[in-house]
Amino acid sequence: MALSKNEIKYVKSLHLKKFRQKYNNFIVEGDKIVRELLASSDFQIEGLYAEENWLATHAADLSLSSAQVYAVSPTELERISTLKTPNQVLVIVRQPTFRFSPDKINSSLSLYLDEIRDPGNFGTIIRIADWFGFPYVFCSPTSTAWTNPKVIQASMGSFLRVQVHPVELSDFSSIAPSLPILGMVLGGKPLPQVPKPNAGLVVIGNESRGISASNLQYLTQQVTIPRHPQGGAESLNAAVATGIICAQWGIE
Amino acid sequence: MALSKNEIKYVKSLHLKKFRQKYNNFIVEGDKIVRELLASSDFQIEGLYAEENWLATHAADLSLSSAQVYAVSPTELERISTLKTPNQVLVIVRQPTFRFSPDKINSSLSLYLDEIRDPGNFGTIIRIADWFGFPYVFCSPTSTAWTNPKVIQASMGSFLRVQVHPVELSDFSSIAPSLPILGMVLGGKPLPQVPKPNAGLVVIGNESRGISASNLQYLTQQVTIPRHPQGGAESLNAAVATGIICAQWGIE
Repeated sequence: MALSKNEIKYVKSLHLKKFRQKYNNFIVEGDKIVRELLASSDFQIEGLYAEENWLATHAADLSLSSAQVYAVSPTELERISTLKTPNQVLVIVRQPTFRFSPDKINSSLSLYLDEIRDPGNFGTIIRIADWFGFPYVFCSPTSTAWTNPKVIQASMGSFLRVQVHPVELSDFSSIAPSLPILGMVLGGKPLPQVPKPNAGLVVIGNESRGISASNLQYLTQQVTIPRHPQGGAESLNAAVATGIICAQWGIE
Repeated sequence: MALSKNEIKYVKSLHLKKFRQKYNNFIVEGDKIVRELLASSDFQIEGLYAEENWLATHAADLSLSSAQVYAVSPTELERISTLKTPNQVLVIVRQPTFRFSPDKINSSLSLYLDEIRDPGNFGTIIRIADWFGFPYVFCSPTSTAWTNPKVIQASMGSFLRVQVHPVELSDFSSIAPSLPILGMVLGGKPLPQVPKPNAGLVVIGNESRGISASNLQYLTQQVTIPRHPQGGAESLNAAVATGIICAQWGIE
């Protein structure tokens, strides 16, 4: 059975933030991530659109899911896909409720992204958090939405394990009043000289402007990745800087 | 004077690797990078295409250059640009000759990219090398060409200071026979346990497949960035892994 015009229109509408917010869901694509998603109990799948071959191979995984399943042609998948090269299957997922434990925030390192705009950077940072076992990635409400298909794609499935939540940095004064807040800035204390924190929020600034002036006041420690004396670049990519600080503090 | 059809066709041909190779040049775009380029003596500019306003402001910088200068309309710039949003000026640059010093290779850390395919990763890695003062980024001939406009863009001007050169890894047995060759793999020695090398080649593998089987034999040390015991991601992004290893070994 072919997809109706309205069904196609509905999935395509979820390419846009406005409609993802309206319907409180988002799109996940590709064989590997969708299989991981089906194995996870934390996500509720609303609809699954897959090519016949894929459905035949994964019928068993699907039997446990309450998703509405659609068999689609490659042409139909192309019409609803967010990818240049669609990869067999697309699902619509309910946005999960953010459940956090204040104890966990107070006993681990988490990230806070202050207006990260590039979806590739955002997804890569979620992947870094996952590798180093950081449970939470918080972000300013001005950041790109984490449900953006490019963020989901760049996270390589890590959004399944790391919880992402938009919140103002100022709110941490009530969420976790004694939590150290360490910000990556130019001209702060050199990273190797900052004692490894057991818990804290690591703040990463915007790709061009860094941490916003209004958020600098909340930092309890300003940290800098030292540039080599002969080095020339003006800054490091935001995801690379995140990786370096997570490796410094996240490796046992 | 409007650009002729042939002039437009010529610049557009350089969007493709084939023609960049044929004419031995490449495209650099945007106000900031072009200003840096004009200030550098290592690059020869063949043609400069800029909007009137930009030309009026930068006439003094241009007087020292032997470039052919074209005043173009925003519409013309859009036609020849590689960017979605062109930024005032585009230049065509001669490919520089790679000049290396064996002494410098033998006394510093350099990178070797084994089939890096993503231009964003490639450019970000050149930027990392620049930040940490690595003089050379070598790459396999199978890697994306470093003159790809997206590599140039992602390097944020760092290609002006770091020399990039395609060469087989096997050639280092004659270029620098005693140079340590350290490769990032899964299941190698944990990074914190590897003594910081004073000189060496750090090999970064392909985004999906890692270091190729045929190149593994040249590694004198296999290195791994340890994943947290509770971590879930299967791997780190190639540029992020590069940043972590450069920070570990490149900070004084």
